[in-house]
Amino acid sequence: MSQASSIAVEGLKFPADLLQERVLAALREAGADEASAAAAARAMMHASRLGIDSHGVRLTPFYAECLRSGQINGSPAFTIKRTAAGTSMLDADHGLGHAAAYAGMEEACRIAKESGVGAVGITHSTHYGAAGAYALAGAEAGFIALSTTNADSLVAFHGGKTRFHGTNPIAAAAPVRGSRPWLLDMATSAIPYNRILLFRSLERELPDQVTADIHGEPTRNPHLAEILTPLGGADFGFKGAGLAGLVTILSAVLTGATPDHLVVPMGDGHTERHDIGHFCLAIDPERFVGRETYDLLMQQYLAGLRGSPAKAGAQVLAPGDREWQTMEKRDRTGIPVDPDTVRFLDLA
Amino acid sequence: MSQASSIAVEGLKFPADLLQERVLAALREAGADEASAAAAARAMMHASRLGIDSHGVRLTPFYAECLRSGQINGSPAFTIKRTAAGTSMLDADHGLGHAAAYAGMEEACRIAKESGVGAVGITHSTHYGAAGAYALAGAEAGFIALSTTNADSLVAFHGGKTRFHGTNPIAAAAPVRGSRPWLLDMATSAIPYNRILLFRSLERELPDQVTADIHGEPTRNPHLAEILTPLGGADFGFKGAGLAGLVTILSAVLTGATPDHLVVPMGDGHTERHDIGHFCLAIDPERFVGRETYDLLMQQYLAGLRGSPAKAGAQVLAPGDREWQTMEKRDRTGIPVDPDTVRFLDLA
Repeated sequence: MSQASSIAVEGLKFPADLLQERVLAALREAGADEASAAAAARAMMHASRLGIDSHGVRLTPFYAECLRSGQINGSPAFTIKRTAAGTSMLDADHGLGHAAAYAGMEEACRIAKESGVGAVGITHSTHYGAAGAYALAGAEAGFIALSTTNADSLVAFHGGKTRFHGTNPIAAAAPVRGSRPWLLDMATSAIPYNRILLFRSLERELPDQVTADIHGEPTRNPHLAEILTPLGGADFGFKGAGLAGLVTILSAVLTGATPDHLVVPMGDGHTERHDIGHFCLAIDPERFVGRETYDLLMQQYLAGLRGSPAKAGAQVLAPGDREWQTMEKRDRTGIPVDPDTVRFLDLA
Repeated sequence: MSQASSIAVEGLKFPADLLQERVLAALREAGADEASAAAAARAMMHASRLGIDSHGVRLTPFYAECLRSGQINGSPAFTIKRTAAGTSMLDADHGLGHAAAYAGMEEACRIAKESGVGAVGITHSTHYGAAGAYALAGAEAGFIALSTTNADSLVAFHGGKTRFHGTNPIAAAAPVRGSRPWLLDMATSAIPYNRILLFRSLERELPDQVTADIHGEPTRNPHLAEILTPLGGADFGFKGAGLAGLVTILSAVLTGATPDHLVVPMGDGHTERHDIGHFCLAIDPERFVGRETYDLLMQQYLAGLRGSPAKAGAQVLAPGDREWQTMEKRDRTGIPVDPDTVRFLDLA
């Protein structure tokens, strides 16, 4: 989602329908049941259509590997327990995180409709892809929605020299009358780990203050970079680290999943069940200022934002604006897919 | 709260009790009723004791000026309306924001005890000082708690060259069995505006990528700096700007207060009623994994964090650790107060 340093995947382009069909087939073949495969494909297509290629269809082989190794349960039996007027717990039985996260957000919205706010903790889950997919689902249902997940450790704590937190994203979305939702989806590290891999293949220098080598020393060399650093860099990384910690507390500590630094990573030959947690929050504007005034204020706020004068060579875009533009373009011209994924999905 | 660039106030030191008494007297004299003055003094003493001097007792003259000018209502009549099982709205009647924010957090905790989660929107309020004071109050009552506020505009949007968002803090706190809460209190700009003023008086160069001049061009000269930039700097400022927007949506758009860019600032000769909003969230761990497991996981998480190897010359501290250390020291040796505030509070 980085504007300054994102690099679109280059490669052959394919229509969304075809990609979705191949992703579904690959997940089914790897052992995912219908509901799990459909949710994972939906979340990956969200990311691929909106240009978040790091979390798009290129993750299919990764999920397939983990389904085959047993780290992900292909036929999970979810249990949802309403624990109070505003809260539920969802046990994801180590299934694909996408299905759990969509189910959790639906539950949060159902609760919010009744109780004004709904908070759902999801435990014993696995990698759920792009956090924004679930916040968006909440906003499309009419709620201000948040989704967070913890993850296995890749990011040093501020001042630390080893991996501690996951990239622990915060996604939020809010309905906008007459247009697509406001949509924020951000890792609490400065960049995602996949950016390092991409810059390696491009032999390109990384941005300043976003990665460290295996000894915890700052590096811009993608071949030496092994550890991510928190959003905020050398001076203000305590803020990114603090936000990552908030995500761990909400997603794992509150739900009974495993804290980041103790999570067995997915893939890489591991076979133990993966165990992370997610947190969903849905808020109904109707129970605050009322939907009508909310809609007016949101339009007034966004008009002010988009009318804010831009620096030379820059654009002022609301969170999500760039992604919606990308989606419209990709829906017309196709979704670019990298060569490895083209082969895996039997596209050429 | 910045670790890298914070500068403690230097000056004579005073015991907390004496300071609190003088702050209370000054607020009463400026027209605040007893409940308003007590809440504002409590929040300022929180900040002063924990070393967040920008939001400590030095704000007393500022609040006194706004009480006298009529921008703040000294005798507000709050109305709290429970709107659903999980939500309430609080109209602060333009009183001191501290009283509204403490009352909102108390209401959120009451609701969370019943319903598992409580969300309270506060509208028609004013500057509430350190956001962490209210999150802390929620954590001390046994809940994971969040507090946000919007504010008049000081921060350029990412890519923008004029002030748009306020410094819009996010504060979160979480109970820790047997010790003080985990506590995060961060502006979504890289630095607070008061840091510019402080660096001016010190003739010291500002950190890189945190401020811009009146034309929106980056500057490190504190005499030219007029606009703050969002957390994340030139490459990743869209994340800080996105978080600031989330705060505006929750605090103002959802509650019916004024969005940042339309807020009439406090002080500086203005006389119109100030109008901003706050948002409070409280979550009861008992309705998720249960308090006992939450406590164990929180201790496990924090033990991992504090045991994470530090870089040479750095420390690995959980959010709040530094503040609790400062509080213990200041409770022993007194709170340093800058000369202007010493004079205003008749301390010497």
